[in-house]
Amino acid sequence: MDTNKEEKLLDQINYPADLRKIDKDQLPQVCDELRQFIIDMCSSNPGHLGASLGVVELTVALHYVYNTPHDALIWDVGHQAYGHKILTGRKSVFNTNRQYKGISGFPRMSESEYDSFGTGHSSTSISAALGMAVADRLQKIKRDVVAVIGDGSMTAGLAFEGLNNAGMENTDLLVVLNDNNIAIDPSTGALKEYLTDITTSRTYNKVKAELWHLFGKINKIAPHAREYAQKLENGLKSVLMHQSNLFESFKFRYFGPVDGHDVLHLVELLEDMKSIRGPKLLHILTVKGKGFPLAEINQTVYHAPGRFDRNTGELVGAHGNDKEPSLYQDVFGHTLLELARLNDRIVGITPAMISGCSLKILMDEMPDRVFDVGIAEQHAVTFSAGLAAQGITPYCNIYSSFLQRAYDQVIHDVALQKLPVVFCIDRGGIVGSDGATHQGVFDLAYLRCIPNIILSAPMNEEELRNMLYTAQLRNQGTIAIRYPRGRGSMVNWQGPFREIEIGKARMVRPGKDIAVLTIGNAGNLAEEALERLEAENIEAEHWDMRFVKPLDQECLHGILRHFKNIITVEDGAVNGGFGSAILEFMADNGYQAHVKRLGVPDEFIDHGTQVELYRQCGYDADGIYKAVKSMVVPRMLSKVG
Amino acid sequence: MDTNKEEKLLDQINYPADLRKIDKDQLPQVCDELRQFIIDMCSSNPGHLGASLGVVELTVALHYVYNTPHDALIWDVGHQAYGHKILTGRKSVFNTNRQYKGISGFPRMSESEYDSFGTGHSSTSISAALGMAVADRLQKIKRDVVAVIGDGSMTAGLAFEGLNNAGMENTDLLVVLNDNNIAIDPSTGALKEYLTDITTSRTYNKVKAELWHLFGKINKIAPHAREYAQKLENGLKSVLMHQSNLFESFKFRYFGPVDGHDVLHLVELLEDMKSIRGPKLLHILTVKGKGFPLAEINQTVYHAPGRFDRNTGELVGAHGNDKEPSLYQDVFGHTLLELARLNDRIVGITPAMISGCSLKILMDEMPDRVFDVGIAEQHAVTFSAGLAAQGITPYCNIYSSFLQRAYDQVIHDVALQKLPVVFCIDRGGIVGSDGATHQGVFDLAYLRCIPNIILSAPMNEEELRNMLYTAQLRNQGTIAIRYPRGRGSMVNWQGPFREIEIGKARMVRPGKDIAVLTIGNAGNLAEEALERLEAENIEAEHWDMRFVKPLDQECLHGILRHFKNIITVEDGAVNGGFGSAILEFMADNGYQAHVKRLGVPDEFIDHGTQVELYRQCGYDADGIYKAVKSMVVPRMLSKVG
Repeated sequence: MDTNKEEKLLDQINYPADLRKIDKDQLPQVCDELRQFIIDMCSSNPGHLGASLGVVELTVALHYVYNTPHDALIWDVGHQAYGHKILTGRKSVFNTNRQYKGISGFPRMSESEYDSFGTGHSSTSISAALGMAVADRLQKIKRDVVAVIGDGSMTAGLAFEGLNNAGMENTDLLVVLNDNNIAIDPSTGALKEYLTDITTSRTYNKVKAELWHLFGKINKIAPHAREYAQKLENGLKSVLMHQSNLFESFKFRYFGPVDGHDVLHLVELLEDMKSIRGPKLLHILTVKGKGFPLAEINQTVYHAPGRFDRNTGELVGAHGNDKEPSLYQDVFGHTLLELARLNDRIVGITPAMISGCSLKILMDEMPDRVFDVGIAEQHAVTFSAGLAAQGITPYCNIYSSFLQRAYDQVIHDVALQKLPVVFCIDRGGIVGSDGATHQGVFDLAYLRCIPNIILSAPMNEEELRNMLYTAQLRNQGTIAIRYPRGRGSMVNWQGPFREIEIGKARMVRPGKDIAVLTIGNAGNLAEEALERLEAENIEAEHWDMRFVKPLDQECLHGILRHFKNIITVEDGAVNGGFGSAILEFMADNGYQAHVKRLGVPDEFIDHGTQVELYRQCGYDADGIYKAVKSMVVPRMLSKVG
Repeated sequence: MDTNKEEKLLDQINYPADLRKIDKDQLPQVCDELRQFIIDMCSSNPGHLGASLGVVELTVALHYVYNTPHDALIWDVGHQAYGHKILTGRKSVFNTNRQYKGISGFPRMSESEYDSFGTGHSSTSISAALGMAVADRLQKIKRDVVAVIGDGSMTAGLAFEGLNNAGMENTDLLVVLNDNNIAIDPSTGALKEYLTDITTSRTYNKVKAELWHLFGKINKIAPHAREYAQKLENGLKSVLMHQSNLFESFKFRYFGPVDGHDVLHLVELLEDMKSIRGPKLLHILTVKGKGFPLAEINQTVYHAPGRFDRNTGELVGAHGNDKEPSLYQDVFGHTLLELARLNDRIVGITPAMISGCSLKILMDEMPDRVFDVGIAEQHAVTFSAGLAAQGITPYCNIYSSFLQRAYDQVIHDVALQKLPVVFCIDRGGIVGSDGATHQGVFDLAYLRCIPNIILSAPMNEEELRNMLYTAQLRNQGTIAIRYPRGRGSMVNWQGPFREIEIGKARMVRPGKDIAVLTIGNAGNLAEEALERLEAENIEAEHWDMRFVKPLDQECLHGILRHFKNIITVEDGAVNGGFGSAILEFMADNGYQAHVKRLGVPDEFIDHGTQVELYRQCGYDADGIYKAVKSMVVPRMLSKVG
């Protein structure tokens, strides 16, 4: 059939039912169009480009073969699900991807019945899919359940727990292992090497070659030996490719590896595999960024490239303005390099965020002192504990919402043993367009209840820098330093190091009408508000408390003796957070005052820009301004009255 | 050499240095004596008998071959380390094991330099050992690091994360896989089957047999074929036993399986393996409870049997007194069985605590509706989320301190999606003799900050029973029901089911002098105190708040309008816990009152009986009594004055 390239097949497809009406041999064209649509969209509205380009063919094949939404597709992490979203009723609103009140950048059950299970964090798909498959079995529902998981996600413990359990349950579960040899940064660990091994079939090919060589010799004396050899080879193949396979160890039937960009072959394979019962794993090889040359070459940059030129691929506004404040992550990265030059006990640890947390800066100069352990937050923390137990000072950098994965390890392996691990908690507070799964808003609450931990949150780059410096001055036990996503407020922050006294707050602005106590970056929002208030003759005293734990008791005694109105501001959950710590101090010390706590309310916060979400939560500058006025003005009026 | 059995070798051994002076051929006798010592000790002072008996030979061999404490031994979980403790300076104080102010039942860095890394929760040892080995490499210290991990612990994701990373690091790490096919209950999952497979070497033996059969035929026509076959077999063996091995997939050199009760062979093996560089895994087969017949036969009961008769093995006081209140875990187990009979959507999930949480009661009657997923808390939660997403009502039972392992999954996979998983949190609060690693004291604080969650803690068996009933009445989203270790306060609790209104508190006792707000089992301690106070004419009003979230606002408004003195009591961390929620309510609603929060202070609480530890923390009945008096009496006196 001669397909007319001008005729857009994608225009006819709004739902998978439309896709399934298309002739099979037109599927490559659908893939091309879908790929171009994704590139178009992401070029102007930033998102996770690379991952979604890599699974275009898989996405089309899955929706073509399976009866979605009755059959369930679970996209691990979910940032690769753009094609899925476009094919499942969200093409017309895809321009709102990741925007405030727009569609989410990840699958969400509440957004579409085609999103069978919400994702965002990695490695949940096998466990969730198994749960769904078992539920079907219990309820005698006939349904296929498919989990799509990347090789990077496969390294997290949860994925293995899922495999181990799934292998024992007699459910018709298909796991598609999308092997592109990269998460955001290249995958690491033994599993990665293992996958490369099976991909190149070294073992099998080596044994096969030896056999033929051997039987060639025998053949000279025994003419039929090669026939036996053929039989033997078949047996061997089954042994080596099945019993010997890691996934077969977990009682999965293993298929592959196959080319993940051959949509017709994928359709055939998936159709064939539908009739095979029990747990199955299909190993496909894909290229992250497939079909957009710059994205294929520079996979880490084009993981989520921001805006770019649709034709050249050049990034728009990528070259930072010298006048613009630095990214907090770079303040961390550059400062740690400086410290590592001064202190040879310092090492850096990251669970697969070597670029995202800027530990790459240290790695480039001192590769032996940086450990990218793969997507494995639990291990990152316990590994750091082991290092610290032997006199090393590990700076373990984990995003706030991912540290939730290692909560037990923080308590049990580090804090309980008072080990000097420095937790550098990036992406603390509202993170913006990644949305509800990634907001780092619970950390102050969940860390504050752990004994033996110093919990700090610097207000700006200079404070972050000095806190990183302070953390390695002597063994002070377990320290957490929490800072936000994005840029700070200072251009020049690289002054000489200064020690910060642990548990010591800092007065930012004196005042007499009300006390505003802030922690971390929220202090900058408060300053914006207080400047406006000053112009209205409202004088608020502002303290950057610096530490959630230990609290600066001396400072608080002083404040509580003088002020009857107090506002606390934090870029985090108010339930159990920083403001709550202030209330506890007051109760324990018999102080009474009116306290308004500003921060993230008791709900999950969806995507949007950070500024939009601060506003929604009521602790942007305007929200703080209004809160102060609502407490101060009535009092002033009553004085006047 | 004729060893005199009357002469106690163990008497001469206080430290490993003493052990290393013993002739190698006397080691079996040392093992016998050590085993008898452990049995003697555990018969009168309860502890983890079975696991420690299983590793007697390994313990002796490790300390004989390695230069401890310079070389590092890390005992995964650590309940098997009794022999280790006895051989490392703690023989004379071993009678204080797990007792208040005595030695801990787990390795602790603060207790001995021979405890290279503290444990308690499972599956941390490989990660910690790798950290220590890397620290040695960075600091150019020559040291061997050995992790001992059970097959049960190997199923947790953290162990795999550790293996995956360790395989890539060029460190001299030895992992001893202590394969006894049981954790507390028999191990489950694909890995268990896999280990059985390698143990019986099915794959290798099958291929070998086929080869010989084939070459036998060839031999008739080619006389030298069997020579080739031998060569081929050797190649095959290396391929099958190495490349094909799961652990070799992770780039570990694999040795075994070998008999873990042959101390002389273990010593030889360990000596040989010391010269082999890089990551290695030694797979040993042991019998849990080895050497004490009843413990070998009934491994789950003798995991931690309580007191028993040294000679017959009979348990002392095991037969529950009918007049004694039930164990909370049995209230859960029996009630869930009743509910499961009424509601066919109900299933039970446990991560390897089928006996400990009494889900066995449901399993015995409805094996298809109980899922023991192995030591895999993360998977247990996400698997439950998958079940709930498809209309099943999972009761996911996890001990409080182990739920820390699945914190992200509770947030990301369950609460965020408002899935109706019922978390049954056993061992909430102080647990007693298991000590600091196992105290379930952080749960109220770390769960309270999560949106969409109903967080309840019943005060007694009847409340637990009715809350379990209420949780399945309709889809109410995510519910957590938290209850303590041990026995409750009621003998007859099996009345008809009654619905509990979500977020509704319960007045236990009216009063006028002070309000005492309690959550969960702490309410019983309060009642004890308030009865004494009533006799002194102090009338405290007692509210069992039942829910930490949502709080009963109506009730609190009433209380705060009437009382200026309030005491909160919880069996959990006061930082961020229940009392903190009350303070937040007061601040948000403009109430002022004196509030004293009783609960676990901001420190890790070591082992002891629950009663001893309540007292230490100041919220036993006496502590509550004193707290009430300290607030009420001055006010009464001032009135009088």
